[in-house]
Order: sequence, then structure tokens, then C-alpha cells
Amino acid sequence: MSYNLLKEKKGIIFGALDEKSLAWKTALRCFEEGAQIVLTNAPVALRMGEINKLAELCGNAPVIGADVTNMDDLQNLFARATEHFGGTIDFILHSVGMGINVRKNIPYTNLNYDFNHKTFDISSMSLHRILQTAYKLDAMSEWGSVIALTYIAAQRVFPDYSEMADAKALLESISRSFGYHYGIKKKVRVNTVSQSPTRTTAGSGVKGFDGFISYAEKMSPLGNATQDDCANYCVTLFSDLTRYVTMQNLFHDGGFSFTGVTPAVIEQMKEE
Amino acid sequence: MSYNLLKEKKGIIFGALDEKSLAWKTALRCFEEGAQIVLTNAPVALRMGEINKLAELCGNAPVIGADVTNMDDLQNLFARATEHFGGTIDFILHSVGMGINVRKNIPYTNLNYDFNHKTFDISSMSLHRILQTAYKLDAMSEWGSVIALTYIAAQRVFPDYSEMADAKALLESISRSFGYHYGIKKKVRVNTVSQSPTRTTAGSGVKGFDGFISYAEKMSPLGNATQDDCANYCVTLFSDLTRYVTMQNLFHDGGFSFTGVTPAVIEQMKEE
Amino acid sequence: MSYNLLKEKKGIIFGALDEKSLAWKTALRCFEEGAQIVLTNAPVALRMGEINKLAELCGNAPVIGADVTNMDDLQNLFARATEHFGGTIDFILHSVGMGINVRKNIPYTNLNYDFNHKTFDISSMSLHRILQTAYKLDAMSEWGSVIALTYIAAQRVFPDYSEMADAKALLESISRSFGYHYGIKKKVRVNTVSQSPTRTTAGSGVKGFDGFISYAEKMSPLGNATQDDCANYCVTLFSDLTRYVTMQNLFHDGGFSFTGVTPAVIEQMKEE
Amino acid sequence: MSYNLLKEKKGIIFGALDEKSLAWKTALRCFEEGAQIVLTNAPVALRMGEINKLAELCGNAPVIGADVTNMDDLQNLFARATEHFGGTIDFILHSVGMGINVRKNIPYTNLNYDFNHKTFDISSMSLHRILQTAYKLDAMSEWGSVIALTYIAAQRVFPDYSEMADAKALLESISRSFGYHYGIKKKVRVNTVSQSPTRTTAGSGVKGFDGFISYAEKMSPLGNATQDDCANYCVTLFSDLTRYVTMQNLFHDGGFSFTGVTPAVIEQMKEE
Repeated sequence: MSYNLLKEKKGIIFGALDEKSLAWKTALRCFEEGAQIVLTNAPVALRMGEINKLAELCGNAPVIGADVTNMDDLQNLFARATEHFGGTIDFILHSVGMGINVRKNIPYTNLNYDFNHKTFDISSMSLHRILQTAYKLDAMSEWGSVIALTYIAAQRVFPDYSEMADAKALLESISRSFGYHYGIKKKVRVNTVSQSPTRTTAGSGVKGFDGFISYAEKMSPLGNATQDDCANYCVTLFSDLTRYVTMQNLFHDGGFSFTGVTPAVIEQMKEE
Repeated sequence: MSYNLLKEKKGIIFGALDEKSLAWKTALRCFEEGAQIVLTNAPVALRMGEINKLAELCGNAPVIGADVTNMDDLQNLFARATEHFGGTIDFILHSVGMGINVRKNIPYTNLNYDFNHKTFDISSMSLHRILQTAYKLDAMSEWGSVIALTYIAAQRVFPDYSEMADAKALLESISRSFGYHYGIKKKVRVNTVSQSPTRTTAGSGVKGFDGFISYAEKMSPLGNATQDDCANYCVTLFSDLTRYVTMQNLFHDGGFSFTGVTPAVIEQMKEE
Repeated sequence: MSYNLLKEKKGIIFGALDEKSLAWKTALRCFEEGAQIVLTNAPVALRMGEINKLAELCGNAPVIGADVTNMDDLQNLFARATEHFGGTIDFILHSVGMGINVRKNIPYTNLNYDFNHKTFDISSMSLHRILQTAYKLDAMSEWGSVIALTYIAAQRVFPDYSEMADAKALLESISRSFGYHYGIKKKVRVNTVSQSPTRTTAGSGVKGFDGFISYAEKMSPLGNATQDDCANYCVTLFSDLTRYVTMQNLFHDGGFSFTGVTPAVIEQMKEE
Repeated sequence: MSYNLLKEKKGIIFGALDEKSLAWKTALRCFEEGAQIVLTNAPVALRMGEINKLAELCGNAPVIGADVTNMDDLQNLFARATEHFGGTIDFILHSVGMGINVRKNIPYTNLNYDFNHKTFDISSMSLHRILQTAYKLDAMSEWGSVIALTYIAAQRVFPDYSEMADAKALLESISRSFGYHYGIKKKVRVNTVSQSPTRTTAGSGVKGFDGFISYAEKMSPLGNATQDDCANYCVTLFSDLTRYVTMQNLFHDGGFSFTGVTPAVIEQMKEE
């Protein structure tokens, strides 16, 4: 079903690895809502994933590889995307993150700082690099909309999330800071969407993920939000109906963020 | 223009006084997006305002008077609305508020507590009364959506806003609390939208409103959000595309809430 | 042990019922730190409790009954307290709250609004009434300090806390609003302290309190803060060392407020 | 005047450059309150500043140079400090920050990412490096207290603060994350203090600082907090009276953080 909410809009989607990816579903929904899409991911992810399948589903969207820590790659991406579209970009989804210390099972109290720098560069500074590239090339349309996906660990400690919590806090700050400057310059808005934990291929790597997903489900009055719902929400934020929402961190989590405890969780405590 | 985002949805709009009202614009936009509407306001407001004109524009929507502090009135409203719709309510807009001490120019440090009680009853507890009535009558559809309009004075002090700041803080807390319970029971979501200051007939009453609106404009990277934009945003929150957003306070303010200062404001400071 | 942090300071303590009360411990610690104290509570609480024992421990502090919803009582209290001290008040502890619907086991979705009004009047508006009385009588010293005790349910839903969550949100807003006005007028600062759940006589009344206290303990890196620690913290906030802290909600909870989950809680989830 | 609040406590103070430094005043106040001090700063800052004068005033405190981005330096610092004290560290003040792009007048929309990495390493990751070093050496006492100074730009955009806003957001996240782990391990608490803008030698470098300080003064009901007041506040947070405060960002700003606007600021707007 389509409302044509994104008719004539053009967007770049970062980070669609496979069918479980939030970016995958979002690309698809944007296409259904009438948008033209350019897909991008790191060269290594392009090889591992199934992005060509997604490209087909999105009307043969171009797939342009780009290392988000490389300014030349980003410049090339924007140059080719605006050329393909014959015009400026209306929306961008940033769904990129990787915790190198996390992957290597290095605990938060024993961080390797070179790995950590790489974690921040991929997961957080990449948003700044993308926006700075677009800003310099004047590649965004007026009232364009940028969303970066984040997680509530930026506000509260989820121990296993480790350095990625700091990466997300940094990402959200960049979103505010650049949102200010791009808003002043060209009314481009920048927001983060703080999504329920979701069983993506990336998410599955985190230790204790199953116990955690079940906790989040029990702590959310509406349950955890799915990938499809996240895609729907992003569509509204890319549309012209949400023009004055900017510099916000928007929880899309079934109420988890403002629930202190639930009977289901307390019940567990008692059984001890 | 219409996306048919609210096709087959049925909603009650509280608080449309005249053309400048946020509720007026929202009712119209919801109608344009395919919704059926019931309009309601306090009997005295119905007499003062031009609601019949709005009713016509909304496809001859029924206008049902209700004092939001009176449980019988609210019960009557929901009974008649569900009868009119031939089914349950999909969305509600709460755009109701009145600061009695403010109106009477009584300063915050000299509150009359009877007036203050009335202020809270009209501006805040009304949301609880509406939700409790709907909850008891089981009058909301599954995944229904409720929005109450609020203002950032609930978080930070804007001195002239006086007791209304406390009223809005209370309103937002009720939205979270009831959002939890209604979410658990029937997946109904409840949010507040924290809107830029707008030149409504109600807003104009506040002392120093002009200086303040100009300050807010200067402090918002995108400028102040208009009534039309607020209406658009509410449409997205009433739609099926935002189902997992609940218990949130959502700023719709062009970035005001996360801007600490702007050159335009600093400039003024120096001229002193 | 004493640091003489409150030497020559004079304070009024509201709400010391018995030895388990946060206000009881705070009164004692303030006295130990060199302060002179006036104790007050509702007439009915004075009869039920053991306040005379506390008065003795605080150097025969006067006990002055006052219904916090009665302006005459409050005026009498401040008049007699300033007379007793021979000067203005340096600090006030507001540790007052009662949820009438909660007591009567009336659920949040079925509130009696007369009871609710009384809940807010006792638990929230009482702070405004106290401050307004002091403000009019000019009864506070310059740089005076006011603390109201609150709970994190003002930010996130703890279902059993019911209407008291809304009461605390209102209390915190009043603290900000009046903190602004009293700061401007006389540099009086007003803050709320958001304390861990504690086994007070009042707290014990809340349904499911045991399961909840155990959950909070498991979710706080330092464990739940005790009454004694709360008293210590209040002493610092009443002292001259914290003069520029105002209009804040200060969590005193062993880290609960910024902990998203802990292994201890996740562990319970898995056992299911 | 002294309360002996820090009697027998031992602390390390990072970042005292000269008499205007927040760290300078804090070191002095801690010493007055009975603490033993070790001073440290970057080798280059030691040469530029007057730290030997401070060392004398603090009872001939050792001055140990350390580059906060160098793990060997930090290990050496902790080894020598614990040797000097003959025991573990009770408190640490982190007052370290430098925005390389800011210094070089490179705007936020044109960041040099190598400089930016250095900014984060000095201003934010330094806290992690310090805590990780202490954690591994088990160099902190039980219930030890760590404070990092921060600024409200971490929450709201102050355009001239540029990349330092992101650095402070990262710093605050690290404080929460490590506060969790160090709390669990040894009840060490970690907090940030968000201070009013102050005319330090470092602060003076920021563009438009004068207009901004005057704006902050006008927006704070109590006015801007001074260095002396900041030092006093830190003393309370290092003391045993605040043991259950951890993982918090504590505003010490005369009410700026929760003031939306003041008549003084609105007045300026109208004059336009």
C-alpha cells in the first residue's frame, strides 16, 4: 500500500546489508511511497550482502560503494547520485555502525583506543562527513531531511553495548550540531531515530542480545517496534509533513524510553 | 493536496475556536486526508467562535458541546461520536488550555489556588478525564492515537507563562501515565506535541507575547512552525505510519528546543 | 560526626513522621551540622507519629502543626518560626506527599477527581503554598535553599505509583517555576531531590513495593541510597557550598536513573 | 574558612593552568578542606602556566606532567601519585579540553577530521584513559569520586562552541558508561559538572565569548556561577556526603539550564 508520501523525492540510503536491515526495509518503503533511491554501503558490505536484490526491488536503484570514513568516496557518491537524479538529494538515511572493540570482545574497561577511534569514525563521524560533503557540494534540496538511526544506550547504560553507547551519544550530538547549521543555511533538518532493539544481522553480534530483546519487549507497553514500523516512521520524517521537526532524538520504541518498570519485569524479580 | 493518510479514520477534535486555532487547521487537514471528524468545544467557546463554519468545511461534521471538566458531558460526547461514526474512535486531538490566574493578571507568586485548580482541571486533568471516559467505554480503536498540544514551558521557565507551565508539565505526565495503561490495554498511543509559539486567539492573551514570538523566531534555525505545519505533523502522528511512537513529548518547533543561542540573539546582547 | 556545614543556619523541616522518614534523618543531620530546626507536620501526623522524640534529639526544636493546604496554618508557621529563630529561614525541606486514590486502591484508569485534587493539593501545590507564603512574608534569607523530595516516576512510568507520578511531575515543575522567581527576587534556590525508593512508613503502603525495591537495587550500580545518605546529600544542598545550583532535579539514587539494564536483571529474564 | 570536608582525602587535579582556571580554584579549596593534592597538566601547559605557585599554595603538592592522550604518562602519574600518597586516590578532577579546529578558526561545517580526532582525544577520551588506567591499577579508593567539567553545549547548540559540543557530549557519555562499571566494581562514582561560562584563559579564546557571557548572565536567575563557587560545589561532590550521586550531569549555572527566557532578554529583542 502506498500514500505517495515521497512522490518525486530522491534519497540516499546508507547501510542496507540484507533483508533484516532497518535500512533495507526503509529503502523499500521509500520506493513504495514514490521515491527514487540510491543505495550505498562499504565495499566489503556490498560483497557480503545481497544489495543487488534490493536494488532490483527499488526499480533498479544504482548501488554506489563508499567507505564512510573516506571523503573522496563520499564526494564521488554525492556527485554520482546528484547526476543520476538530475538534481539535489531530498533525504538521507544513515544506518551505519560498528563497534570494533565490541566485535573483538574487548571490555569497556580495557578499550583499545585505535579500535575505538575507528568505531567512532565509522559510527559517528561518518554522519558529519556525509553532511559536510553534502553541505560543501550544496547537494541537498531545501527542506531536505536526514535521519540517523541510534539507540537509547546514548542516554542510559546498557553494559554490553559498550563503546557503541558513546558512539551513539556522539552521533546524536553531531545530528544536533549539524542540524543547526544546515537548518540555518538551507532549512535541511537532521534528526535521529532511537529504535527498539531489532534482530538485525549486526545486532545479533552483541553479547546477551536475546535476554535483552526479551527484556525490552517486556518493558515496552506496545512491545518492540519492528523493522517495518521503523521504515514507516522514517517515511513520515522524510515527507513534507514534518518540516519543522529538527535537531531531535525521536524514540520509536513502543514506549520503552518512558517506562520505568512493568509488572512483567517486577514479577521476574520476585521469583528469585 | 491529499495523501489519504487518514482514510477511513474517525477522530474527535477538541478546541477549535477560530481560524487561527491549531485545532481548526488540524481538523481541516485530517478531513482532507480522508478522516471523518467530530468537533467539540466548551459550550461558551461554541457561542464565541465560528465552529459551524469549520463543521461545514469538514463535510458537515457534527459539533457536540462538552465541558471537559464534566464527566457526563464527556460520556455524552463519546456516546454520540461513536454512534455517529458507527464505530470506535481512531484519533483525538486535545488542544485545550486556560490559565485563569494568567487571564486575571495575577502573578505566579500570588496565585489564587481556586483559580489554579480550575486552570489544571481545564488544561491538564481534562486529558485524563477524556482518556478515562474513552477507556471505560472502550471507545478507542486498537492502535488509536491521541495527541495533546503542549509547550516547552513544561521543561524551562518562561516567566509570563506562569501557572500554565505547571499545567503543561502535568499534562505531559498524564500523557505518559495514561499512554502506558492504554498501550497495555489496547495499543492506543498517547503523545504530546510541543509546538512553537503561534499567534492564536488564545496565545495573544499572554503578556509580552510579541517580544517572545520574535525571540523564538530568532532562536529557531528553521523559524517558528506555523499552524499549517502543526496540522501536517499531527496527521502523521494520527496515521498508521507512526504506530510505535508513544508516551513521547515531541517538539515541533524548528529546532528551538535544542538551540542554546544564536548569533541573532547574541547580537542584540552586545548592542546594549 | 559533624563538619559544622550548617552552623548558624535555621531551617524548617516538613514531614518527619517517624524514624524511617527521610525528613526525620534530615532534621537530625541538619542539627548535627549546627543548624537550628523547626519541625512541622499535619496535625493528624503529629498525633500518629513520634515527632516529640525527634524534637528532643534536635535540641528541643519547636513543633508547629500546619496543614500544608491551609494558608492560615502556613502563615502562622512562618510567623512563629521566624519569631523563634529571631530572623529569616535559611532552608526548608518539603517531604510531603499522599496519594488518596492510591491509598484507596483506586486504579489510575478510574481516578476519583476529588481525591486526585486533594492528592495534588497535599503533594504538589503545598510546595507552592509554602513558597508563596514565605515570599509574601519575605521570610527566607538571601541565598536560602529549598529542597522538595521527589521520585523518578515523574519522568518514567512506574504503574503502581499511579497519580503520584503526576503529582511529582507537578511538584518538579513548581520547583523550577518558583525557583526562577525566588532566585530573581532574593537568590533563594529551589531544587528537587529524586531519591531511591526507601522503606518509609509512607512508602510501604504502595502495592508491590518489595518487588520494586529489589528491582531498583539490582538496577543501581551503587545500590539504593538509604535515608542516611539522603540526609547527607540534603545537608550539602542546604550549605553555602552549592549556591549556584537551582531549578534542578537531582537524582540521588546510586545511578538508577541512567542505567538502562544490568546483567542481574537480564539474568532474571532468561530464567523464564 | 574550612569545614574539613575532605580531611584525609587524596586527590589528583588535572588542568590547572593559571589563577583563572576552574581547576586552580578547586585544587585550592580541596586543600583548604583538608585534602592532599597531586597536580598534573600537559608538559606544555606546565611550562606556560604558573602551576608551581599553586603547588606551593597547596602545601607543596607534587606536580607530575602527563599528556592525557598517552597511556604511559597516565600510568606513571598514577604510580607516582599513589606512591606519594601512600595509598589510593579518593578523588579526581578532570578539567581538560581543547578544540583544535576551534583554535584554528575552522568552522563546524568544514572540520578537519585529524584535528577533530585530536580534539576528542584530549577533551573526551582522556577521561576514559584516566579511568581505565586507574581501574587497571586499582588506584581508586572505594567510594572514590571523579568529576569532569562540561558545558551545556552538550545538550543544546551554541554555534561558536563548534566541535567542543560534540566533545562534551562524548565526555558525558563516557562519564555515565564508566560510572556504571566503576560503580559496580568499587563503588567509585563519576559525574560531570556543567558549569556557567567562566572567563578562564581557555574560555577567552572562543569567538563571541563576551556577548555570550553577558547573555548567560541575563538568562540565569542567580547570574553566572564563578570559579570559586564551582570549586565549592566540587568539594561537596568529592566529600562523603554525596556518595549515592553517580552517572549524573549536574548543572552548576545559576538556573540557566532550566530558564527558557527572561524579561531582560525579551527586552533586548523589542528594542530592535
